[in-house]
Amino acid sequence: MALVVQKFGGTSVGDADRIRAVADHVARTRRSGNDVVVVVSAMGKTTDDLIRLATEVSSVQPPREYDMLVSSGERISTALLCMALAELGVAASSFTGSQAGIVTDTDHTKAKIVDIRAGRITEALEAGKVPVVAGFQGVSTERDVTTLGRGASDLTAVALAAVLGADACEIYTDVTGVFSADPRIVPDAHKLSRVSFEEMLEIAAAGGRVLQLRSAEIARNHHVPLQVRSSFTWEPGTWIVEEDEAMEQAVVTAVVHDISQAKITVAGVQDKPGVAARLFRSLADRSVNVDDIVQNASAHGITDISFTVPRTDIATAVEGVSGHLAELGATQVTSDQGIAKVSVIGAGMKSHPGVTATMFETLAEEGINIDLISTSTIRISCIVREEDVERAVRALHRAFELA
Amino acid sequence: MALVVQKFGGTSVGDADRIRAVADHVARTRRSGNDVVVVVSAMGKTTDDLIRLATEVSSVQPPREYDMLVSSGERISTALLCMALAELGVAASSFTGSQAGIVTDTDHTKAKIVDIRAGRITEALEAGKVPVVAGFQGVSTERDVTTLGRGASDLTAVALAAVLGADACEIYTDVTGVFSADPRIVPDAHKLSRVSFEEMLEIAAAGGRVLQLRSAEIARNHHVPLQVRSSFTWEPGTWIVEEDEAMEQAVVTAVVHDISQAKITVAGVQDKPGVAARLFRSLADRSVNVDDIVQNASAHGITDISFTVPRTDIATAVEGVSGHLAELGATQVTSDQGIAKVSVIGAGMKSHPGVTATMFETLAEEGINIDLISTSTIRISCIVREEDVERAVRALHRAFELA
Repeated sequence: MALVVQKFGGTSVGDADRIRAVADHVARTRRSGNDVVVVVSAMGKTTDDLIRLATEVSSVQPPREYDMLVSSGERISTALLCMALAELGVAASSFTGSQAGIVTDTDHTKAKIVDIRAGRITEALEAGKVPVVAGFQGVSTERDVTTLGRGASDLTAVALAAVLGADACEIYTDVTGVFSADPRIVPDAHKLSRVSFEEMLEIAAAGGRVLQLRSAEIARNHHVPLQVRSSFTWEPGTWIVEEDEAMEQAVVTAVVHDISQAKITVAGVQDKPGVAARLFRSLADRSVNVDDIVQNASAHGITDISFTVPRTDIATAVEGVSGHLAELGATQVTSDQGIAKVSVIGAGMKSHPGVTATMFETLAEEGINIDLISTSTIRISCIVREEDVERAVRALHRAFELA
Repeated sequence: MALVVQKFGGTSVGDADRIRAVADHVARTRRSGNDVVVVVSAMGKTTDDLIRLATEVSSVQPPREYDMLVSSGERISTALLCMALAELGVAASSFTGSQAGIVTDTDHTKAKIVDIRAGRITEALEAGKVPVVAGFQGVSTERDVTTLGRGASDLTAVALAAVLGADACEIYTDVTGVFSADPRIVPDAHKLSRVSFEEMLEIAAAGGRVLQLRSAEIARNHHVPLQVRSSFTWEPGTWIVEEDEAMEQAVVTAVVHDISQAKITVAGVQDKPGVAARLFRSLADRSVNVDDIVQNASAHGITDISFTVPRTDIATAVEGVSGHLAELGATQVTSDQGIAKVSVIGAGMKSHPGVTATMFETLAEEGINIDLISTSTIRISCIVREEDVERAVRALHRAFELA
């Protein structure tokens, strides 16, 4: 008897019919002899509706209250799914993040899990029940309701799978798996049957929306076998697996793009030890997630530092840096929202040094200017103008023969 | 500096504008030097919408899951009100029933409060904050989310006021106070500026919808000064106060009616000790709230027992009794939904024995047949046909000169 954690996203539980379909699938998994733990997101656009309501009520949204508000959607889904399971004769119990023992720090709206005390989940399993857990939320060490950031129901599922020693964690969503590129942009993109954790991490970090980044990290660190699949077609999806010598390693596995970032440039920074540290400490203190960082060559002891941040963090980041301009010896800070990132990712890239050249040549042939470049052992990313990014994705998908 | 508990019902927080109006009132109360604890219901029809959604999803609604579902509406209200208060510069913190320390038994959907551990509320007050508590809900001794029954946000407010030793508990609603009769039926009904707890208890028990019955009981037992008033006009409402020698005691204070009950008759019951006890124990075990009970005179050692229950409990009550018919020696159980109760209530009634006669004469003159009669020291109730009840209320309001 295997233990499976199944996570269903907002579109998967979008209305009464969808919830019944999910209940049916959970019941079938249970009846084929598995223990099942379910994690659900809020129904469809519930969370967006709550955020809009908050905006109507007040221009001030204290983070603690924001979390109390937006965590309610998942509770509704858990209770409804348990009712649908009851109708199918499957005993189930709903659990809030707090009841499921998801203990977090106090960094409201993007809290980090510090402990999982899954005693009630284990008890429910031992009693033959299906625990249905509200994703995306926990309880802080101060006993307040916290949320783990947008998309973090994946994180709840993977973290529970890790703690419970689950045999598999299945992330159900409205796409059938991980693709070689976004099928809306590249019609002949194909579904990958397996990707390595390392590739999945890079895909998530580079903007691939299938799986939340922190979830992929935790899955890798805890060796949780992960599958991304569709709750609409129920067909086999993409397995995210340990890298394996025997794996067929394409040089490039996927082309990923991201239009959610902005570029911030701090000009005229003193090029001496400790300056960059002060700059990024001031951003870390404000919980700004800095992605790529590029420092240009120094001339006369001063340099420019550019970095990307989520567009939602622009104001915080600019404000954070502005307060330290004198201290950094810098002259100005500017932001640019008109950028996009395109990345090629592949575990096989490590042994094929020509990938970088092919990528740059392909973009050059398309007349696409590269603004910033960053690389890891299995990824190359270029920042380009946002209006060029779809053309870039299509050209790279073709150049690396991913169709 | 006084401590005031203010409770706002569903219509009072029905949309963003209403929530801001409530925040404004709370802020003014706070700024005039009072400590304020707020209790809120779910916005408008939120709870009804959730119940409808549950019906769409499943025909089976386990009570534990029902409570998890319907308790979410109040959480949303608390967070939104705290945001609106933050915009006005008033520090506020939301609390779920569980966080507010409302501990209940495990009788889901109509749980009883067994303890209030208001430590977090007291801490928030000491920190100069306005605690905003989700009404209608608590946490069971099994650590599950419970609800206290429809309308029980009043109960949350009164119970917190009692535990905190509040100087006043203000119940804000969409009516301006307690009336001598329902103004929709009796246009010249007048607002009572004061009623005694005893009268309020009888009014609530007799179907007056202004204040939940259990709330009135707790307010009396704990001497919590209570005011019912409007969150739309903010005008002074009705004070519910200790009975006082100096109080002007009208013989009859109010005429109250109730169309939410049904009559159940158990025919051919053996008239011997212990039979009635067994009958009503079987109903109590099913948490059916029995209201009036009438046993007719015995003939040949057998009798009929009639009682009223909420219409929502008919099926449970009939089923409960049916299982015991043989044991009770009874022949059949029937239910009648076409009834209504009309009551006259007044603390002055105790010393005016003529009230009963006037009531019966008035109904007789209107040609209205009386089915059951029940009385307390300050109340006389008659069960009549539902179609006669509005005429009965108008005639009695006139006969006792309440206009």
